[in-house]
Amino acid sequence: MFKPVGSAIAAAAMLAAGALAQEAAELDAEIAATTQLLIEQARADEIGLNFVEDLTTEVGQRLAGSESEARARDWSVAELTELGFDNVRVEAFEIPFWSRKSESVAVTSPAPQNLVATALGGSAATPTGGVTGEIVRFESLAELQAAPISQVDGKIVFIDEETIATMDGSGYGMGVRKRSGCARAASDKGALACLIRSVGTQPHRMPHTGIMARDGAEGAGPAAAISGPDADQLTRLLERGPVTVSVDIQTEIKTNAPSGNVIAEVKGTDLSDEIILLGCHLDSWDLGTGALDDGAGCGIVVGAARLIADLPEPPRRTIRVVLYGAEEVGLFGATAYAREHGDHLDKHILASESDFGAGPIWRFQTRFGDAALPYARTIQSVLSPLGVTPGDNRARGGPDIGILARSGVPVVTPGQDGIDYFDYHHTPDDTFDKIDPEEFRQNVAVYAAFAYIAAETGWDFRKQAEPESAGTQ
Amino acid sequence: MFKPVGSAIAAAAMLAAGALAQEAAELDAEIAATTQLLIEQARADEIGLNFVEDLTTEVGQRLAGSESEARARDWSVAELTELGFDNVRVEAFEIPFWSRKSESVAVTSPAPQNLVATALGGSAATPTGGVTGEIVRFESLAELQAAPISQVDGKIVFIDEETIATMDGSGYGMGVRKRSGCARAASDKGALACLIRSVGTQPHRMPHTGIMARDGAEGAGPAAAISGPDADQLTRLLERGPVTVSVDIQTEIKTNAPSGNVIAEVKGTDLSDEIILLGCHLDSWDLGTGALDDGAGCGIVVGAARLIADLPEPPRRTIRVVLYGAEEVGLFGATAYAREHGDHLDKHILASESDFGAGPIWRFQTRFGDAALPYARTIQSVLSPLGVTPGDNRARGGPDIGILARSGVPVVTPGQDGIDYFDYHHTPDDTFDKIDPEEFRQNVAVYAAFAYIAAETGWDFRKQAEPESAGTQ
Repeated sequence: MFKPVGSAIAAAAMLAAGALAQEAAELDAEIAATTQLLIEQARADEIGLNFVEDLTTEVGQRLAGSESEARARDWSVAELTELGFDNVRVEAFEIPFWSRKSESVAVTSPAPQNLVATALGGSAATPTGGVTGEIVRFESLAELQAAPISQVDGKIVFIDEETIATMDGSGYGMGVRKRSGCARAASDKGALACLIRSVGTQPHRMPHTGIMARDGAEGAGPAAAISGPDADQLTRLLERGPVTVSVDIQTEIKTNAPSGNVIAEVKGTDLSDEIILLGCHLDSWDLGTGALDDGAGCGIVVGAARLIADLPEPPRRTIRVVLYGAEEVGLFGATAYAREHGDHLDKHILASESDFGAGPIWRFQTRFGDAALPYARTIQSVLSPLGVTPGDNRARGGPDIGILARSGVPVVTPGQDGIDYFDYHHTPDDTFDKIDPEEFRQNVAVYAAFAYIAAETGWDFRKQAEPESAGTQ
Repeated sequence: MFKPVGSAIAAAAMLAAGALAQEAAELDAEIAATTQLLIEQARADEIGLNFVEDLTTEVGQRLAGSESEARARDWSVAELTELGFDNVRVEAFEIPFWSRKSESVAVTSPAPQNLVATALGGSAATPTGGVTGEIVRFESLAELQAAPISQVDGKIVFIDEETIATMDGSGYGMGVRKRSGCARAASDKGALACLIRSVGTQPHRMPHTGIMARDGAEGAGPAAAISGPDADQLTRLLERGPVTVSVDIQTEIKTNAPSGNVIAEVKGTDLSDEIILLGCHLDSWDLGTGALDDGAGCGIVVGAARLIADLPEPPRRTIRVVLYGAEEVGLFGATAYAREHGDHLDKHILASESDFGAGPIWRFQTRFGDAALPYARTIQSVLSPLGVTPGDNRARGGPDIGILARSGVPVVTPGQDGIDYFDYHHTPDDTFDKIDPEEFRQNVAVYAAFAYIAAETGWDFRKQAEPESAGTQ
């Protein structure tokens, strides 16, 4: 059975979602029955789980713009074709490319020792042989930004801010601010390099990489993350006196590297020009094999779409699976998709991306027109036996879907329990063994259920309430 | 409070220790009271815990024969002198030295990807640029040893045997057999290199190093451990077809490198020539900072001895703390100590080494003369409120103490709960944050208590029963 969410959390979620606790729309009995069948089948899913296992094994890591990401596109096209999807294709685009060649961070004085570090994506290279300087420690990016130049000039900055584990991943935002801002703020004040405490929540020497800024290959300065235990070690050394550290980061950059979105469809019937978009991203960071981020998301949406395709009759609307390229390095796939399909966004009925690992889904957030909220209530009710509680109507839909949401496409965010997601995310430890098959299958069930209902009912999720007639009172 | 050991386990231990469940020797009331005072003080220990924190911070890793191990000796002499110990000194010796310079293991075909690997201690170097060959996988060392040469020749061997987590660390022995034997068995059959599944119990990409053989710097061939998730990845790839891997290991070796044992004492009174030896080892592997292996052990015995030294009167016998050098690479410190002190082993009344992390002690094993077993019962009774159950009389006393035990010196093994010890041991993750202060202090209490009783009572732990008189039927 799926783990139920603690009743206190569920009650709080119900309370917060007050606005949604309204009348549900009626769901056709036959659609309801088919949805139950999909949920049952999802609980025995093999196709989705095999997709992640095979992708992460037969391709491995999939750094955006690399030869590996290109292999992942070829692999996906072959696999999705083999699985019988319609209109399998790649929509190609180009991106700036950044890759680490080598990196080392070491205390040189007073107690020479290596630190476990990883260059941040987009880090500038150091001169060959590295830079060596005294550490100046800050508790936060804001503290660095407020510091006088004299405190930073010629030194190596160290921001020692912890990342908080939360169910909804909200602790990550703070972490990303320091990851994005450190090199720029440090360089502007004459620092030689920036080190940050890894944006991760696990207690291991397992540092977390990630993009510094969307300008991709042109970082503001050399920057690396050191693991939590290494950050503690540096802080303990600093409590004892001045500490000198060397940082050596060598990189490879290219201006125009190939990337692309892989698209596959389950073609609808009488409403086949209307799209239910299920997204994920195909690229990953280079340290792990991108199993949780975001092989799992791709397996979930492929598994869900494949179950729908296997129904005796396809649904009325088209289910479009989009495996976005180059998400990690600046949402380049999202931009390319919007550019390519911008003239048909009105035909995008609903969109959702799975990109938060494979933890169990515990709430159902939407961004629907206000008159469409009864549809949200209906779908959540169907998902309720899977442990899914009502969410608010402020969903963002996922990183690659944000651009669609901002253009008015209704979106859904099935909220996963991500309490341990940042234990693995962007680290070498993001590997297939970290996926719990049972929890993964609950995700497939949720995606299959809401996508099928959205595709088969013909509901309009943009629907706004009629303006009240003026003049009364 | 200290965690009590599960009652089922305790009951089983009582049963197994039947031979010890005999009459206890009487403990002088004043000694008993002082022992209780030591236990209370140990529960607030700062000196022992600071010793580990400072050693692992201010020195860091302490690879045998390295400049770091030399710094650790200097640091320890200064620290132990500062703490007021008597006769603080180094007994120097030389060892063969091995160090990794670089290592990389990568799948080159069919799906190029890096594997997280660490060279085993004593690994031979590969030719510059590494070796590349097809993987041949075995489930165990025995299976490799039984394989025909034709199956192995020109290939890279991979032994994919899991390490089992156990409370007493007994799963480690099997792991060590493959670590010790793989390179020799592989090389003898013409293999290019050997890879083993890491001798560790954690699910992270955190490979475990360790010595291959006691011949130190002269390994039989190139050998590395890959982490559990990487071993799983390699096995998944092999399920799909042939896999080619490259292994590049570069090393530094020296014939005569300096090492040494650091010794400090709490000088006894009327029996000061009689020694209660408390040991640990000062060297560590190079990946972590050797906090659990064996900074903790040194902190425990230093903390315990220091509490005894702070009593209003020193005990009758001398407490000798020995921080052994070069344990990891072949027990060189143990051999040097036995060589140096071999003429006085009869004056070694009792010996014990702490070298299994900082988990709570749950049983009290001894190797005493049979007529001295009542002393074991008495000491265990004193330790019982700390959660310590009776153990058998087959203790080995710890790795560096084994040579003394085999020469007839009575030994004690306070058995720690090591269920998670091999999650960290010999990996980059063996760092100070992995030590639980409360569990650490329970260890200090146990060592302080039994060492004080042994030093103050004058008991003879070698005592054998009188042979029964012959002739009576």
